[in-house]
Amino acid sequence: MSSADLLKQLAFIQEIDKLKYIQRRTKLFNSDRRENDAEHSWHLAMMTIILARQSDRPVDVLKVLKMVLIHDIVEIDAGDTFIFDTAKNHTNTTEERIAAKRIFGLLPKEQAQEFMTIWEEFEAGETDEAKFARSMDRLEPLLQNVSNNGGTWAEYNIDYQQVMEKQNVHEAISSSIATYAENIINESVDNGILRKENPGK
Amino acid sequence: MSSADLLKQLAFIQEIDKLKYIQRRTKLFNSDRRENDAEHSWHLAMMTIILARQSDRPVDVLKVLKMVLIHDIVEIDAGDTFIFDTAKNHTNTTEERIAAKRIFGLLPKEQAQEFMTIWEEFEAGETDEAKFARSMDRLEPLLQNVSNNGGTWAEYNIDYQQVMEKQNVHEAISSSIATYAENIINESVDNGILRKENPGK
Repeated sequence: MSSADLLKQLAFIQEIDKLKYIQRRTKLFNSDRRENDAEHSWHLAMMTIILARQSDRPVDVLKVLKMVLIHDIVEIDAGDTFIFDTAKNHTNTTEERIAAKRIFGLLPKEQAQEFMTIWEEFEAGETDEAKFARSMDRLEPLLQNVSNNGGTWAEYNIDYQQVMEKQNVHEAISSSIATYAENIINESVDNGILRKENPGK
Repeated sequence: MSSADLLKQLAFIQEIDKLKYIQRRTKLFNSDRRENDAEHSWHLAMMTIILARQSDRPVDVLKVLKMVLIHDIVEIDAGDTFIFDTAKNHTNTTEERIAAKRIFGLLPKEQAQEFMTIWEEFEAGETDEAKFARSMDRLEPLLQNVSNNGGTWAEYNIDYQQVMEKQNVHEAISSSIATYAENIINESVDNGILRKENPGK
């Protein structure tokens, strides 16, 4: 690689520092402090390494890691979208595509293209790697909400059905994680930290 | 894997959330806000993906990623050690080994052993993967200090010689990164954000 390429790479490395300022709605485990996108991405990467062997089919762990590490970088420009926000699309919005082009475009051309392809594969959600990455992305806030007495479910008046709709991603790739998720969601209803039905809707 | 294994993995995943509370001395780019270990680890992982092709010899990117993602987990128990702290050893302290055993020990046995082996390989710094991971670990705060008008160098009265001693790790694995690092350190002296000599020492 040329030294011009190195300078482009370093400009990108500095730009993505901004991910540390993008706040999510979900909070750290047993905490009132909101998580930022960089912390979230690190946690998904750790979960990927640890839980890859829970996948029903072998996944390319390096590719899943790339997906979860970069999946939220577009939010530097486009902002975080709350998963239960019904007024906004969550994937492949125009805003996010423009963000991906600008930010990945800081990299040398071939690498920019690679990142764009990986991000699009994650967003499309069709390959086993994308399915596994999506499973991790949903599992982390589930665990956080359970540890926080309902967390964003309580804060935003979310009910059982809404949670189940978002948590149905696991069964496409890991029956063990799907079973676990279903069990703790049901337990959350039993424990009174998740409403069975939402009379306000 | 058994469901008992999954429960152990999830207990570990919850435990390592604490890395988000471990503050480093170095600050985010162009910022007064200190970085935490989870953010730092995510950034090193991104740098690894991007800069792997700057390595003089091919490295196993997946292994380097595992190293940088887990390298600071021991600090959950042992705390962060400032790189220019001369009163404390930085690698393989008894405290860190006890921490590694406790925290990695939450995982299923085989995985606990894998994590311990990877962490020890990083600490030993002998393989190309460990050298590359170390290079990333030193490069990030260098870039941050330059962007912060000297950052921790100014704050803790660090001079050129001390910085060069820590930044000599790059030449063992990447001549392009080594050249870049040497250049910006010299420029930092020229720009007055790093002292050439430290008369107080």
